Amino acid sequence: MKREFRNLVYEEKDRIGIITLNRPEKRNALSYDLLDELESLVNDLAAERKVKVVIIKGAGKIFSSGHDLNEILNHPIEVEKLFRKCFSVMLAIRNAPQTYIAQVHGMAAAAGCQLVSACDLAVAEENALFSLPGVKIGLFCSTPVVFVSRAVGRKRAYEMAITGEFITAKQAYEWGLLNKIVPVEELESATMELARKLSGYSFTALESGKRMFYRQIQMEDFLALEYATEVISLQSSSEDAVEGIKAFLEKREPRWKY
Amino acid sequence: MKREFRNLVYEEKDRIGIITLNRPEKRNALSYDLLDELESLVNDLAAERKVKVVIIKGAGKIFSSGHDLNEILNHPIEVEKLFRKCFSVMLAIRNAPQTYIAQVHGMAAAAGCQLVSACDLAVAEENALFSLPGVKIGLFCSTPVVFVSRAVGRKRAYEMAITGEFITAKQAYEWGLLNKIVPVEELESATMELARKLSGYSFTALESGKRMFYRQIQMEDFLALEYATEVISLQSSSEDAVEGIKAFLEKREPRWKY
Amino acid sequence: MKREFRNLVYEEKDRIGIITLNRPEKRNALSYDLLDELESLVNDLAAERKVKVVIIKGAGKIFSSGHDLNEILNHPIEVEKLFRKCFSVMLAIRNAPQTYIAQVHGMAAAAGCQLVSACDLAVAEENALFSLPGVKIGLFCSTPVVFVSRAVGRKRAYEMAITGEFITAKQAYEWGLLNKIVPVEELESATMELARKLSGYSFTALESGKRMFYRQIQMEDFLALEYATEVISLQSSSEDAVEGIKAFLEKREPRWKY
Repeated sequence: MKREFRNLVYEEKDRIGIITLNRPEKRNALSYDLLDELESLVNDLAAERKVKVVIIKGAGKIFSSGHDLNEILNHPIEVEKLFRKCFSVMLAIRNAPQTYIAQVHGMAAAAGCQLVSACDLAVAEENALFSLPGVKIGLFCSTPVVFVSRAVGRKRAYEMAITGEFITAKQAYEWGLLNKIVPVEELESATMELARKLSGYSFTALESGKRMFYRQIQMEDFLALEYATEVISLQSSSEDAVEGIKAFLEKREPRWKY
Repeated sequence: MKREFRNLVYEEKDRIGIITLNRPEKRNALSYDLLDELESLVNDLAAERKVKVVIIKGAGKIFSSGHDLNEILNHPIEVEKLFRKCFSVMLAIRNAPQTYIAQVHGMAAAAGCQLVSACDLAVAEENALFSLPGVKIGLFCSTPVVFVSRAVGRKRAYEMAITGEFITAKQAYEWGLLNKIVPVEELESATMELARKLSGYSFTALESGKRMFYRQIQMEDFLALEYATEVISLQSSSEDAVEGIKAFLEKREPRWKY
Repeated sequence: MKREFRNLVYEEKDRIGIITLNRPEKRNALSYDLLDELESLVNDLAAERKVKVVIIKGAGKIFSSGHDLNEILNHPIEVEKLFRKCFSVMLAIRNAPQTYIAQVHGMAAAAGCQLVSACDLAVAEENALFSLPGVKIGLFCSTPVVFVSRAVGRKRAYEMAITGEFITAKQAYEWGLLNKIVPVEELESATMELARKLSGYSFTALESGKRMFYRQIQMEDFLALEYATEVISLQSSSEDAVEGIKAFLEKREPRWKY
């Protein structure tokens, strides 16, 4: 797999992948080129099936300021291409077997905030700020608000998108956009600790769990429960589940196949 | 546009409309006649497209106690007419290009609480109380619980509707029904400050943002993101967006066309 | 109605039913036999229409640890039978005219946590713990996460299911999984107090309210409001609603027919 990028840095530790958005001089703006590299990388990691967990973080002072505004002033066809690429990245993250964790410092604005909300989990340092500021430039954070509204609820997402104002990490945590907030000096270790915990679990469990979670959440209650019932019945006879249950009953550590 | 009402007062400040429910002697009960006037006014403001933001507040001691119980004891055909009118008001608010802000003092009960939850944003004074008390009179706040449950989540909405008890402004804020709580003496100014901020934004952005927000929230995740992707691609070439982005890049104030 | 069970204890106080999961030596594991008895009892209470409210609690040190792991190691056909039975219990609770309240002490894990989330309301003692630990044994709490995700939101439910870690009663309360937390010595009385309040209301109101609540929450906003509008129009001419409104206007206590 190609490991050299112009806009990203990629490293692996054990079975954890770490993607760094690496355009610090541009506040890690999500340009078309960066998104294109990110989509390829996410899809490669999915195909390779080596790492179980992926962390996305930003180089420099902030996580990401969102799209590159110069690219939004382009010809409409180029603009649509940009937003379609952004869509593809979010879909690639959703379809990946890996659990994605956003590690946020400084600021996550507009499409940067979208990327945080599109990750499965999110950890931030306590002074990080989050915003959907499109309205301030005569636009509206239409794409970012999709996953933000699904994480924080209606009135709050509406407020963020219609006022364009920042919310603090504490608010983002209390509203359900973040899973954890920590002092900035602990951000790296707290995120790695979470990633390490997950990478200790069966990849089969992580993967099938992620897939079923996002499918069931779109369904009517008892259609969802019926689907989940079928899934868990099948999951129960997977090699790793049988091993996991036996290990638990025998009070020993499980040895996962995947 | 007709500006004289029996049950309402309407004023405009700059591009902000202020609707006052004006039946203080009846605790601003949402009678058929009041709702009929409110529907007309909301639709007129939508057609006129002059104000960008509308505040709804109540005259006297409370925001609103809900429907007029005497009207619910009427002939079933009249009762259905009342509830259909109430439905039309909520739909008119949703379809309006303006952002609606509820400004709540004292109490918002039953259909009064529904009106708060149906507005896009809500500000309340810190001692305001909220309830869905229908169950106490052998009824159930079926219509009010629709938007309340979408704002505060299931267990909490169920609790409100099945116990009929008050929740405080602080709870309503923590649960996501309110965007802001302030001391009573700051209620007017805090709400106006929020309205002024929004009225400084492009009407095109506010309107297309509101429409897309409520459409996408009903959709499956990636259908929503696909829809949002098309919307933001189109929004990006609107006159106000182009102006807004240029102004931002040139570090000057934007001049909106709408 | 049969009142003797091998895995449950059932009592009635006034119009409140109290079901105790009674396998304390097995941490109230939700075995096939227990679930089968529970389904029958819930359905019998629904048919009998005597009690208005049902409390589910656990005997011994904890509420419930979830399924019996030995049963998940069975032949796949037996495993599917177990999960289908669990599905039927959740559906029976949803379809019952009674309001179900979970009374939680100690711990509610996996399917135990599912049972809490499937009840209409939940009260817990402040030191109770909640978890979806399936991932730790190579599985994933697919069925439990369905109602947990609908109560606490995405990022939090995902975290619970993918980390398998406990959350405290305080977190569960703040996230919306619980309606109330109290010191352990007040758990019984606080739950009974809530049940008594509800049992003082019209059974017609409680039943039609429960049914409409869960139907409307699956619908698009204005389809839901249209449905609710029809329901409340009909509810308004029920005997208990007419009596309730008259009693309120006459400032006297209502006398419910049901």
